[in-house]
Amino acid sequence: MNASDFRRRGKEMVDYMADYLEGIEGRQVYPDVQPGYLRPLIPATAPQEPDTFEDILQDVEKIIMPGVTHWHSPYFFAYFPTASSYPAMLADMLCGAIGCIGFSWAASPACTELETVMMDWLGKMLQLPEAFLAGEAGEGGGVIQGSASEATLVALLAARTKVTRRLQAASPGLTQGAVLEKLVAYASDQVVATLGTTSCCSFDNLLEVGPICHEEDIWLHVDAAYAGSAFICPEFRHLLNGVEFADSFNFNPHKWLLVNFDCSAMWVKRRTDLTGAFKLDPVYLKHSHQGSGLITDYRHWQLPLGRRFRSLKMWFVFRMYGVKGLQAYIRKHVQLSHEFEAFVLQDPRFEVCAEVTLGLVCFRLKGSDGLNEALLERINSARKIHLVPCRLRGQFVLRFAICSRKVESGHVRLAWEHIRGLAAELLAAEEGKAEIKS
Amino acid sequence: MNASDFRRRGKEMVDYMADYLEGIEGRQVYPDVQPGYLRPLIPATAPQEPDTFEDILQDVEKIIMPGVTHWHSPYFFAYFPTASSYPAMLADMLCGAIGCIGFSWAASPACTELETVMMDWLGKMLQLPEAFLAGEAGEGGGVIQGSASEATLVALLAARTKVTRRLQAASPGLTQGAVLEKLVAYASDQVVATLGTTSCCSFDNLLEVGPICHEEDIWLHVDAAYAGSAFICPEFRHLLNGVEFADSFNFNPHKWLLVNFDCSAMWVKRRTDLTGAFKLDPVYLKHSHQGSGLITDYRHWQLPLGRRFRSLKMWFVFRMYGVKGLQAYIRKHVQLSHEFEAFVLQDPRFEVCAEVTLGLVCFRLKGSDGLNEALLERINSARKIHLVPCRLRGQFVLRFAICSRKVESGHVRLAWEHIRGLAAELLAAEEGKAEIKS
Repeated sequence: MNASDFRRRGKEMVDYMADYLEGIEGRQVYPDVQPGYLRPLIPATAPQEPDTFEDILQDVEKIIMPGVTHWHSPYFFAYFPTASSYPAMLADMLCGAIGCIGFSWAASPACTELETVMMDWLGKMLQLPEAFLAGEAGEGGGVIQGSASEATLVALLAARTKVTRRLQAASPGLTQGAVLEKLVAYASDQVVATLGTTSCCSFDNLLEVGPICHEEDIWLHVDAAYAGSAFICPEFRHLLNGVEFADSFNFNPHKWLLVNFDCSAMWVKRRTDLTGAFKLDPVYLKHSHQGSGLITDYRHWQLPLGRRFRSLKMWFVFRMYGVKGLQAYIRKHVQLSHEFEAFVLQDPRFEVCAEVTLGLVCFRLKGSDGLNEALLERINSARKIHLVPCRLRGQFVLRFAICSRKVESGHVRLAWEHIRGLAAELLAAEEGKAEIKS
Repeated sequence: MNASDFRRRGKEMVDYMADYLEGIEGRQVYPDVQPGYLRPLIPATAPQEPDTFEDILQDVEKIIMPGVTHWHSPYFFAYFPTASSYPAMLADMLCGAIGCIGFSWAASPACTELETVMMDWLGKMLQLPEAFLAGEAGEGGGVIQGSASEATLVALLAARTKVTRRLQAASPGLTQGAVLEKLVAYASDQVVATLGTTSCCSFDNLLEVGPICHEEDIWLHVDAAYAGSAFICPEFRHLLNGVEFADSFNFNPHKWLLVNFDCSAMWVKRRTDLTGAFKLDPVYLKHSHQGSGLITDYRHWQLPLGRRFRSLKMWFVFRMYGVKGLQAYIRKHVQLSHEFEAFVLQDPRFEVCAEVTLGLVCFRLKGSDGLNEALLERINSARKIHLVPCRLRGQFVLRFAICSRKVESGHVRLAWEHIRGLAAELLAAEEGKAEIKS
């Protein structure tokens, strides 16, 4: 495939992408396939001779799409959102063409420098304390990780390295093993200090936890994977109060800030805490500016050596939406979750199980776990909408998360009517069973 | 930006990508910018109101491109190749549109199942032992990791979990700390057992290491990050002999197999070794097929929870090149490195410092490290080609790696003539200095 073939096929693919996303409402949100469905549909080995692009695109519809869970359908209310926007897709296309690997400044200066500045832009959007920003001469700064899990692991390893060195400096005889045995990682009920938990989007109080960590010299990592995006709106920023006590903070723009996966934003107050833990300097990665103190080599900030030019996605999205556009997007989702909450509250057979702060409503039928499990089973079997459950204070609970960029009040209303209808059927069937028994 | 805007802008972007890659030879391979160049060129904060796409695309040329190291220029001979192909870019576009997060089978069955089958395809291309394949009922199988570092870390953690459980089962009083203090990770001179090291592309002998590990019950992880792609050619497959003794194996199709970053292929013989170490099963990720034994939840195979639909890239590339096309690509690069080797060998002022097996030539001027450092400095300052050095047996050595998909004999010849010219200048200048001294 040469450049001119790519011009033709690339444009066909752009149309396919637009068709897919425009028409996604017409696709069944959750697939019908059974485990193992795909293997019999494709050959057991790669072809020796090339296949045509037409064949492949046909197979996408025939083999792939029937097995896709459509995360961007306006009837997808499961897990948490994963971001999808046209500006991010355009940026990702460019990222693919440039195809640089930004492990050091020299490996592609633009890749490193745009990332540092975009992380400052985003930090300012969140009103993060100055200490987390790189600026021109700051000691802190941000980095794009692949996922919140990686950010948490990086924070843990940095904390462990730091405390181990401190203890070994104080008691030179102390072995690593002896230190490791004594280290404790404190975590809350739902996971690190968390703003917006996965189960019910609850918030740890950083103003309580923070000062204690500060006094006791404990590394405080704050994870706001989902909720963090909301902090760009002044009315939600208070949920982040106390972050000034944290050593590291991260959230995922790839969840709720329209920057396609992967883009997990992580900031630290002292970049030397990371570079101290991960520094790797073989000769083939050395470059002449390394000692200047002016530059950032992001390979010291993360586990992998390689990294894509991910900040292009942030740049495109922030510029093409503008801060106001992003805020409007967050507010719309929060508004929709409150609409769903209101529906639930109006129906005496249901209850809301956790405070609705952002885009998630946890709810259940008043009654047993079994009843709610049966309701979820009916909902997901019907394939019209897709939800997942969670467990809150021992109870089985349904989660209704506002996810799609295209979800509107009408979809939320339809979803609620559908759930109510299935609940009515279920309750009637249960009553029927009870009558037969009695 | 709506779907119809995206159709228009997406097609413009496709043309921009094709223009960039077609014209890349005309761009200076290594940028002139100094550290900190980018920050003054863009605003200090994100815009409140949206910018236009035209503005952004202009800024790409004005702000980004001057700071890009062009990894796909045919004059880029640094590090190792990073893959770039049109089929992979097309697949990545589709991946962006589908935008699913494949942490479990249910989260998008096609995402999980295509990955398993593609990893089998690739395993068969490499003639990996049957035990590493998933097949319909195998105990092994493959997973796409983000990078070889992640694959190595996953292997280490799995090995550590396994041995800790074994020791604690034998001596229930043993603490984790006590076990950890006694664990040893053996590594070779250049990093785990490695096939194709970064410095000089040397190979550990698995037929020597393997049986010892097997006897002593030591987890053997084999990393062939760069070289692995070559094993699809029968004439290079012998370099992989002994992999039958390994517990885990990985290499990076995103380096040399035309699958754009990120795509690091990892196989294990016993998938339960991974799932035992990383299993994570909160209620909101449970699904009805989970207990069936038929399905794979890839979140148990890796550190991050989230994952893109990366196997699409493998599928598109393998089908649009065919195995023969991929083999031809590898062979062409190896041929080019031998052409460069022949040039070096013909010039008595130079020496080749390591056996040339695949696409890397390690060479130097006969003489001091200082002389070679000065030569590299001249090469990279001239900006016509880009190389990085390494250190081999204590000596400073230049690495000439065949990288670009578009590199041809003519580029290699030009590069060599350029290097010879700079070396002649340098040697003349040194002689001049010596004369002045004497």
